[in-house]
Amino acid sequence: MALAELQAVARNDAGILMVLGILKQRLGERFQTGEAIRAQHAHTTTYIPAQLPDGVAFVQSAAEVQDVVRICAAHRVPVIPFGTGTSLEGQVNAPGGGISIDLTGLNRIISVNAEDLDCTVEAGVTREDLNTYLRDTGLFFPIDPGANASLGGMASTRASGTNAVRYGTMRDNVLSVTAVTADGNSITTATRARKSSAGYDLTRLMVGAEGTLGIITSLTLKLYGIPQAISGGVCPFPSVDAACQAVIATIQMGIPVARIELVNTLSVRSLNNYSKLGLPETPHLFVEFHGSDVGVKEQAETFGEIVAEFGGGPFQWTSVAEERARLWKARHDAFWAGMSLRPGCKALSTDVCVPISRLAECIHETEEDIAASGLVAPIVGHVGDGNFHVLVLMNPDDPREVEATEAFVARLNMRAIGMEGTCTGEHGIGQGKAEFLPRELGDAVDVMRAIKQGLDPHNIMNPGKIFSRVAT
Amino acid sequence: MALAELQAVARNDAGILMVLGILKQRLGERFQTGEAIRAQHAHTTTYIPAQLPDGVAFVQSAAEVQDVVRICAAHRVPVIPFGTGTSLEGQVNAPGGGISIDLTGLNRIISVNAEDLDCTVEAGVTREDLNTYLRDTGLFFPIDPGANASLGGMASTRASGTNAVRYGTMRDNVLSVTAVTADGNSITTATRARKSSAGYDLTRLMVGAEGTLGIITSLTLKLYGIPQAISGGVCPFPSVDAACQAVIATIQMGIPVARIELVNTLSVRSLNNYSKLGLPETPHLFVEFHGSDVGVKEQAETFGEIVAEFGGGPFQWTSVAEERARLWKARHDAFWAGMSLRPGCKALSTDVCVPISRLAECIHETEEDIAASGLVAPIVGHVGDGNFHVLVLMNPDDPREVEATEAFVARLNMRAIGMEGTCTGEHGIGQGKAEFLPRELGDAVDVMRAIKQGLDPHNIMNPGKIFSRVAT
Repeated sequence: MALAELQAVARNDAGILMVLGILKQRLGERFQTGEAIRAQHAHTTTYIPAQLPDGVAFVQSAAEVQDVVRICAAHRVPVIPFGTGTSLEGQVNAPGGGISIDLTGLNRIISVNAEDLDCTVEAGVTREDLNTYLRDTGLFFPIDPGANASLGGMASTRASGTNAVRYGTMRDNVLSVTAVTADGNSITTATRARKSSAGYDLTRLMVGAEGTLGIITSLTLKLYGIPQAISGGVCPFPSVDAACQAVIATIQMGIPVARIELVNTLSVRSLNNYSKLGLPETPHLFVEFHGSDVGVKEQAETFGEIVAEFGGGPFQWTSVAEERARLWKARHDAFWAGMSLRPGCKALSTDVCVPISRLAECIHETEEDIAASGLVAPIVGHVGDGNFHVLVLMNPDDPREVEATEAFVARLNMRAIGMEGTCTGEHGIGQGKAEFLPRELGDAVDVMRAIKQGLDPHNIMNPGKIFSRVAT
Repeated sequence: MALAELQAVARNDAGILMVLGILKQRLGERFQTGEAIRAQHAHTTTYIPAQLPDGVAFVQSAAEVQDVVRICAAHRVPVIPFGTGTSLEGQVNAPGGGISIDLTGLNRIISVNAEDLDCTVEAGVTREDLNTYLRDTGLFFPIDPGANASLGGMASTRASGTNAVRYGTMRDNVLSVTAVTADGNSITTATRARKSSAGYDLTRLMVGAEGTLGIITSLTLKLYGIPQAISGGVCPFPSVDAACQAVIATIQMGIPVARIELVNTLSVRSLNNYSKLGLPETPHLFVEFHGSDVGVKEQAETFGEIVAEFGGGPFQWTSVAEERARLWKARHDAFWAGMSLRPGCKALSTDVCVPISRLAECIHETEEDIAASGLVAPIVGHVGDGNFHVLVLMNPDDPREVEATEAFVARLNMRAIGMEGTCTGEHGIGQGKAEFLPRELGDAVDVMRAIKQGLDPHNIMNPGKIFSRVAT
């Protein structure tokens, strides 16, 4: 069944018409219905076709979010939260129309509590904004999904990225959220205490709910001291399997590696093209260690010994900031580097995550599948967590290629699920993976539906996401 | 209003009678209704009066849990999961009667995946059982609440303990649970992937739900490599404030301390009495470092420098296992040591958690409150997280003392909440703290109630816990 059909949400045209009038009057120029702006708010960085909202509310406070939600709730009109539009599975689309709530105006850093290693920010603050603000405090917020996403959006998709292996994901780093629920009420899910056993963990329920249970308006985040020393480097391997075995050994030895990224042969080729890295065309690990001067040296040396055992190396590492920066810039440019393999193409970025013991096998089978499918698709992975991305470079105007890509992604998801893994490690379900969620979690999805029904009985909070319309 | 009144749950005598007959026939000797066994299953290690279930089902499989829940659901009879009975806030009481499901028969270790650093165990396995089983693997499960609790129970109360500052709490260390829901269905909340963005975080919802949303029958846990080296020691301080300042500096410097425990002056006195420690009678920090040989030495030395800055010391540390074991045995015996301060008394163990910047102030005010109330109540704390325990030693037969204790605990909870903290860091809400939950989280409790209503519409899953009957 086609994606559009799976995700269909009935339009409530009468309600939408009412709401458009009320919001125009209420917000004036801060409510926009022009097609360009609406299209921009349904923009996805992946292949999923845009489904435009009927209007975009540029809110400036949590109270305004409450107002908009109350108005929409009264008329049973969908609300779709929008941060920076960098989600990858159609999370900002409006399959039943409705109002996109643009949260970029909620950009205040409310407080930084250096002694407690936490801060409270409005949902529209981006991770780079926050780290710029923190520059002089000796603290930083580590979660880095690549894009300069909003922190509310990162929480909503349970984002992570390159250094989750050490610092965890948004799940681990959000202490509390304030969110507007489907009735327009505002709740705060937890206090600033580092740990709590007080009732249901609503924080973790809102993190990853993709705006389907509430709209996050502010959040309290953990911060970390900037490490005294950072070292990092690259290491070639004869095969993906050898690289994965080295990762397993590194994690098992308890080396607190901060980043450990696999770049497969095709990705290395693309990075060589794009960033002139001059690496041998073989799988590589990019690694980084955080700690004291003594600690990072020890970690790097131990890692060098481990990789040698698995036929990898030489492991070249450095503590010089500029050299490290060049390397990680190249790694972060993997998306653009990948695109350069096939100029003019469109990229589908998909991700799965498996237990690390199955990672080599999963990537190996996936590389064979890519070859057999005739696709061009480099792989990079946050392999310390068993998470990897495939960037399928495709021509969206060639139906056969689109079909081959969709079939490949379906096999990839089912392969990961078959290996006791998940169909998404960090991109979320959105529209793109809704049909795979029941295949992964079975009846547990009924429990999710019951929660959704209990908290949003009229299905106005980002409808058509996470849950497939058709039980599969 | 008295606790019993707040927690009243209407009895369904007709349903209970039916269920007693069916379960006796179904389970034979594994269903018990004798008073001694029922009393044992309503036993609490704190002062809350026992409320006995009507029968105890000694189940031996997840399928039997499903059977019992289905039978009870059909007759709208409460089910109360029971692990080891070491919870502290009345979690195993049966205020409306019903069936206690004793999970100690679910004691199989299903799998250990050394490469993935995880294992799957049945809910009745205790943490010591698991660590004994893991002995030869080089791996361990770090969460240690003191008691040898069942892992299902630890998940249900979101337990933590001395080394949460490094390894996190049950929230962070449960990858997935399999649970029987109110309709007798069994769901598995997640795969073995280390991270996932696939739908609502039902794992974290079940962790800390105290059996009110489902009965955990098995769970997948993170494991860790046993550190190459461990060092630890004790350090005296001139005041609680100085000790707390040293803790803040330690955490801020990013020293990956594995345990950092405050023992206040009265607690030191009790440990000296009970465990013959011979420490000076002043506040102490007990600390432990995990890492490489070089790492733990560096951590201990840096810590020694920090404590000196705050007037603490001398910091005496050792890597000798026997000496460390003696120290931590004494710390773990703090409950019994405390009891020895007032032989024949009953102990009320309560816990709160505040942002670490408020910890010194909170403990200081609490010590003053204890003195002003004429109570005997030593304090120990997992201070790296801002969490501390007060052990009130009281005569339960003296109504004035009971009243003074309850009033003190109420002030303690409100003090922590007033400092942006929580009324429970690791014991859970149960019955004892239900009236404080709305004071801490306001309207968010309505969202919890909506979830409870959605997943357990007839309120049979451990009723009378978490939610106060009377809105406060």
